[in-house]
Amino acid sequence: MKSQFDITVLRLNHRPSRDKRVSTHIALTTRAIGGKKVYYSGHYDTSLEQSVERVKGTWGGSFEIEFLEKPLKLIKNWKGVSIHLTMYGSKLSEGVQETKQRLLDDPTLPVLIIVGGAKVPPEIFEYSTINLSVGNQPHSEIAALAVVLDRLIDSENWEFDFPEPRLTIIPDSRGKNVLENTEKSEKSKESE
Amino acid sequence: MKSQFDITVLRLNHRPSRDKRVSTHIALTTRAIGGKKVYYSGHYDTSLEQSVERVKGTWGGSFEIEFLEKPLKLIKNWKGVSIHLTMYGSKLSEGVQETKQRLLDDPTLPVLIIVGGAKVPPEIFEYSTINLSVGNQPHSEIAALAVVLDRLIDSENWEFDFPEPRLTIIPDSRGKNVLENTEKSEKSKESE
Repeated sequence: MKSQFDITVLRLNHRPSRDKRVSTHIALTTRAIGGKKVYYSGHYDTSLEQSVERVKGTWGGSFEIEFLEKPLKLIKNWKGVSIHLTMYGSKLSEGVQETKQRLLDDPTLPVLIIVGGAKVPPEIFEYSTINLSVGNQPHSEIAALAVVLDRLIDSENWEFDFPEPRLTIIPDSRGKNVLENTEKSEKSKESE
Repeated sequence: MKSQFDITVLRLNHRPSRDKRVSTHIALTTRAIGGKKVYYSGHYDTSLEQSVERVKGTWGGSFEIEFLEKPLKLIKNWKGVSIHLTMYGSKLSEGVQETKQRLLDDPTLPVLIIVGGAKVPPEIFEYSTINLSVGNQPHSEIAALAVVLDRLIDSENWEFDFPEPRLTIIPDSRGKNVLENTEKSEKSKESE
């Protein structure tokens, strides 16, 4: 199925040496739940973009990643609802409920989820529609993003369309079951 | 509130140089949602354990992290339900539903969530009660863990007990609001 919402994620303050894996996880989580694009600010990183492109090449779809020089401008001018994930925000259920209400009124409303970091400028708190906290304990921006997306999308399973994949996984309770699409309909089942 | 369930996470095949941040995120996510312990296998890592201990020192609670030489033994002998997170498993909603049913029958049942990696031995698929897939696209083991925990716990907010913290965050829609507990009841509110 297609994701019913228009979801974009902004990853602030990416540092290539330290954050590559975390930022890659953020991008791929966004893609896996049907988000359409990740912006990142901080430092431009070819290697991060290549990781995302490689996944797209194998697993399909049209997900985008783009470096952004001025993230504040994006947030300030966002025509839709923006949710800033922070340890210091409103309660999870309240922020999700408020967003869902807005999406109920207008399902085409663009949603921007802002994934911060240690030092977030005060304007982010000010410009964001909602400052939202997944618990008040330090944990993981990836976990926070995943939980908010999962609750927003409210779909039983993470099953979204990724057109023209090279590989497709078939759900299987006992092991790997992968469909190779290069040679149409050839199915390989491995024992592990 | 206290988490109503007995949740432990096993992080397989930790590599200190490459996985420190990802494994730290896994541990802290488990802690933040009321899990009681993380085991990790692969390579012993003082620095990983210290990161978790530091968070505990500041934010309270009795969360544990422990290196495990033989993870297969733990899974094989687990007295409860074990859920192996993998791209190649049953559908998310089905695995969560099955676990919830077991917990409804016995809320004290110990739950072990196994966070794998690229190369997981076939015994893990065999010994685990459930092989569960958060979508059939590559994304993030941290995201997968967070979503499964969030759905299992089924709590409006991530608000669990962390006794004797040095710092406590007060939910606030517009900025940082932190309570310092070293000097009892002294409240510091910053503008950002």
